[in-house]
Amino acid sequence: MVATKLNFGLEEYQTRLRKTRLEMQRRGIDALILSEPANMAWLTGYDGWSFYNHQAVIVSPEGDPIWWGRCSDENGAKRTVYFSDENCVSYCDSYVQTPACHPMEDLCKVLADRKLDKGVIGLEKDNYYFSATAFETLVAGLPNAKFVDATVLVNWQRAVKSPREIEYMRNAGQIVTRMHERILEKMEPAMRKCDLVAEIYEAALRGTPEFGGDYPSIVPMLPSGSELSACHLTWDDQPLRNNEGTYFEIAGVYKRYHVPTARTYCLGKVPQHFLDAEEATLEGMEVGLEVAKPGATCEDWAVAFFDVLEKYGLEKTTRAGYSVGLSYPPDWGEHTMSLRRGDRTVLEPGMIFHFMTGFWYEDWGFEITETVLITSDGNECLSKVPRKLFAKH
Amino acid sequence: MVATKLNFGLEEYQTRLRKTRLEMQRRGIDALILSEPANMAWLTGYDGWSFYNHQAVIVSPEGDPIWWGRCSDENGAKRTVYFSDENCVSYCDSYVQTPACHPMEDLCKVLADRKLDKGVIGLEKDNYYFSATAFETLVAGLPNAKFVDATVLVNWQRAVKSPREIEYMRNAGQIVTRMHERILEKMEPAMRKCDLVAEIYEAALRGTPEFGGDYPSIVPMLPSGSELSACHLTWDDQPLRNNEGTYFEIAGVYKRYHVPTARTYCLGKVPQHFLDAEEATLEGMEVGLEVAKPGATCEDWAVAFFDVLEKYGLEKTTRAGYSVGLSYPPDWGEHTMSLRRGDRTVLEPGMIFHFMTGFWYEDWGFEITETVLITSDGNECLSKVPRKLFAKH
Repeated sequence: MVATKLNFGLEEYQTRLRKTRLEMQRRGIDALILSEPANMAWLTGYDGWSFYNHQAVIVSPEGDPIWWGRCSDENGAKRTVYFSDENCVSYCDSYVQTPACHPMEDLCKVLADRKLDKGVIGLEKDNYYFSATAFETLVAGLPNAKFVDATVLVNWQRAVKSPREIEYMRNAGQIVTRMHERILEKMEPAMRKCDLVAEIYEAALRGTPEFGGDYPSIVPMLPSGSELSACHLTWDDQPLRNNEGTYFEIAGVYKRYHVPTARTYCLGKVPQHFLDAEEATLEGMEVGLEVAKPGATCEDWAVAFFDVLEKYGLEKTTRAGYSVGLSYPPDWGEHTMSLRRGDRTVLEPGMIFHFMTGFWYEDWGFEITETVLITSDGNECLSKVPRKLFAKH
Repeated sequence: MVATKLNFGLEEYQTRLRKTRLEMQRRGIDALILSEPANMAWLTGYDGWSFYNHQAVIVSPEGDPIWWGRCSDENGAKRTVYFSDENCVSYCDSYVQTPACHPMEDLCKVLADRKLDKGVIGLEKDNYYFSATAFETLVAGLPNAKFVDATVLVNWQRAVKSPREIEYMRNAGQIVTRMHERILEKMEPAMRKCDLVAEIYEAALRGTPEFGGDYPSIVPMLPSGSELSACHLTWDDQPLRNNEGTYFEIAGVYKRYHVPTARTYCLGKVPQHFLDAEEATLEGMEVGLEVAKPGATCEDWAVAFFDVLEKYGLEKTTRAGYSVGLSYPPDWGEHTMSLRRGDRTVLEPGMIFHFMTGFWYEDWGFEITETVLITSDGNECLSKVPRKLFAKH
């Protein structure tokens, strides 16, 4: 059965496949084995929390892609991909999480059956869902193939978003706007962090009356006080304290499309260094956003921002952003373009970046960020959260 | 600085390290490089959503473990691990998500600095967070080392839970009980699925007045109608329909300890095959739970259950469960013991399993599951959700 609820028209999936094949051809790749869930979804429509098992989408020069995974996920594939059931194949459960055998042994058989076991095979060798053992098993089982690294080959095809993808991102932007409105409304001293996270999830999932929200590829991160120095801490059940800052790095998500947007909130007194950080960040963002238009490079954008921070005597040791869009855990970044020195990728209309302007010191940190769509003559921020430090007394 | 909010006493971390080293010694491993976030957390206390970057914990024969990760996560490590700052080391941001260089090049230097670049090095070669490229980079950078696979070496040390871990699991059981109470209270025809998921998350995160909840390693899965055939579908914003079944496979989580518990719910009319499935499942679970005690094997437990299903003419092609406890996305299973034919592991008090009794056909499926602690003379189910099919008219 062909999925009845595809998120994109058949033509869009075919365009994606064509773009991917062109790049395969350019690199001399005969068959591409994709392990990245976002690439699998982008090319086939497949959607399910099954990436904790070995699975793949195989693209060859002709015909529809092949979905391959665990037996218990074959029905999920048949219900979500745009092509016919015969291209959904699976391995039996005895391969799952056992030292006795490896699922990739089954994939070798699937490839041999379809005469895809020779020539040049592209693999996503630096993907979360393609382990060292998976690679060794393929190498051992396909002696006639030559393997080349094709990590982020498909990610790059996703860099410029289609009109429908931009529409989904705008929806995600509406959702994250509501999430920050909820924080501002509910956050107060003595509230347990887990209770505030419950509010954030409620806003994220209920979305709007017209559309609901999806799960984020990274859960809310909300360090407080001296923990602001550590940007990837999640939450606990301890109370928020007065006269303490917290930043919230959160994303609105619609049909797996992510719009991350961070803001810093202070309960009670706002320390002077937070006000200074706000001033520097907002000026840096303004200057950066003036540069962020077609024709400029990722580096141009980053340097424009870094220069302002430096002028204020602030140091940021991490990149100033990265491409975002469709994603699955554990990351909402696309792993292609970074806003950093040395990345000379030229900006094009339809590219979308998380302008990640946060910085972290030994005992504090600060985050005000935007997700930015490059338009034909400039850019558009996809959430409507006021760009400022929020103080609540 | 040593973390002030450790989830376990120093002695417990030292016991864990001792157990791990004994197994390293038995296998002739000089240094162990751990990529699995749950193993990293279990051995050091480290907690943060940073596993989307290459990171590791290194265990050598002497001294405290070493935490290694991205520069922006070093402060998070210093705030969560039980040992001193000098054992938290990081790589600079220019290594992040770029084809120009790989973070594992930095790890090679760290190992050489500490004279851990020779001898036998154990790696988690089939872990999500240890890619094929990570392996190749280590092999190229450490010519004097011999590498052996140590996937699930530490997972096995986690199989028998400590009293404090069991306490955390009981808290997680209380949370999942509340989550199902919330579903029963709120679920109704025409409600959007995303709104029901908002209710589930609210119950999960608010927990109880005494303690709050953590994020699950797998998000709620709740297929309905013919989608019941596909066990890993998540949710959308479409309305629930009357006269349709939905199962909810969800976990309560406390400090990263998971108690998954699934139940099937019917709105309106309950089809006869659901009632038959309920009868078979409950009888199978009862028979299985009578077997599940110290001295029996995982296989004994599984076969006792499978035999009852077969008697009812039902077919289950997947394993009947797996070990659970501490985990990070993308899986809440421990990847060690499975309740299946061929797994002759002997049950011991303190082991905990998700008794995953669900089965799936072409156009429907059914799930009533329990998370089960093996006690000194039998077992204890960790949630208090009534073990039945829930029908709401």
